[in-house]
Amino acid sequence: MPNKKYPSVVFKERIKSIRLELENYCNETVSLYKKAISLFEKYDQKKADEVVEKSKEMDIYGYEIERSCIRFIAVEQPLASDLLYVESSIRVMSHIKRIAYLCRNIAEACNEIKDIKISEQLKSDVQFMIDYVQIMLTKGFSSFINQDISRAKELAVDDDKVDDLFDSILRQITQLVAQKTDFALGIINLLFLTRYLERIGDRVVQIGDRVVFINTNRRPRIEQLKEEN
Amino acid sequence: MPNKKYPSVVFKERIKSIRLELENYCNETVSLYKKAISLFEKYDQKKADEVVEKSKEMDIYGYEIERSCIRFIAVEQPLASDLLYVESSIRVMSHIKRIAYLCRNIAEACNEIKDIKISEQLKSDVQFMIDYVQIMLTKGFSSFINQDISRAKELAVDDDKVDDLFDSILRQITQLVAQKTDFALGIINLLFLTRYLERIGDRVVQIGDRVVFINTNRRPRIEQLKEEN
Repeated sequence: MPNKKYPSVVFKERIKSIRLELENYCNETVSLYKKAISLFEKYDQKKADEVVEKSKEMDIYGYEIERSCIRFIAVEQPLASDLLYVESSIRVMSHIKRIAYLCRNIAEACNEIKDIKISEQLKSDVQFMIDYVQIMLTKGFSSFINQDISRAKELAVDDDKVDDLFDSILRQITQLVAQKTDFALGIINLLFLTRYLERIGDRVVQIGDRVVFINTNRRPRIEQLKEEN
Repeated sequence: MPNKKYPSVVFKERIKSIRLELENYCNETVSLYKKAISLFEKYDQKKADEVVEKSKEMDIYGYEIERSCIRFIAVEQPLASDLLYVESSIRVMSHIKRIAYLCRNIAEACNEIKDIKISEQLKSDVQFMIDYVQIMLTKGFSSFINQDISRAKELAVDDDKVDDLFDSILRQITQLVAQKTDFALGIINLLFLTRYLERIGDRVVQIGDRVVFINTNRRPRIEQLKEEN
């Protein structure tokens, strides 16, 4: 096989098809996220059920993409940079699969949140966090699809904003927990919802890290700095 | 290269060294977990700081193992089953890295929990969950190290027990949240602690799934069944 011309036409077609599959998976995940978070503003049981169903399908679909990546490596034996790309695609897939799963968690949490009474400030902070994570999501996915290092590097900074929002929301929820309330389960689920959002942010940062890793073979410095703080 | 005898002596040595690195990483993660959860029973700031530091080191160490796996694939071009093993090791590494990170989260949560007053029942349920997750952890790691499918398959059932414990603890915490309390932040962190434990359980199940996947090239049926429920 090493005597054959590298990369072959079939090889190029296959790597293109993996890329398309991943792009499609990213787009479906963004749609799923939008549907899941729409439940925070207005809960709709039918929509929530659809999110749960779709999330299950995405999990199986993600496994299939992963398997086709492994088959590709085994059959085509791609050289260094192509290998690293496919390899990283497998890693990124596991993050995106997890994000799709978190959308399901969000839909389920929203069911418990729908009847609680919370302040306009808290509501608006959660909505801001929802929107911010959505921006990160599309940025993270496009940085991966286009192998755009500079956008990928922005994600760790975006995530600091999400973490700040989380801290502010946590403080407000702590005040609610301190008081007697009729909405205990709703408040707990609001806490979980914001935690899921924060987790999606973290996953997106890891996707960005992966883009940096593929293109430089180095761990992103910003992540190391964040950890040192 | 395909003309050379496969696998070469160097190859065998290298795959052995990857296996040893992984085994070492697993052992260190179990130690880290034990240290982190000891803080629930008796908080000690010095120990907590050590967990945080160690967790950072583990993250970097995990990255290094992952890179050496990728180099191994690129240089040695292992054939199907060896490739699948190394490939899966990379995936498993990301789960173990995450578990090590969750140990850090646990240590941080324990700092907020240390002064709260909770019922003996709740305390004993949390302790039971802690112990159960530890059993899953050692079982999951040994099923991976020894490629033991039958133990790997047990993990999804073990995880149901952890989920039941989580639900019971959640009910008790919901009651606490409904009342006026002086320990709001502590209660929230107790909630997070149990959520982290539940997340570790999920990760271990995913490691088990991976063991099944490596050895059968199939998604474990039990996982599909769980999702359908």
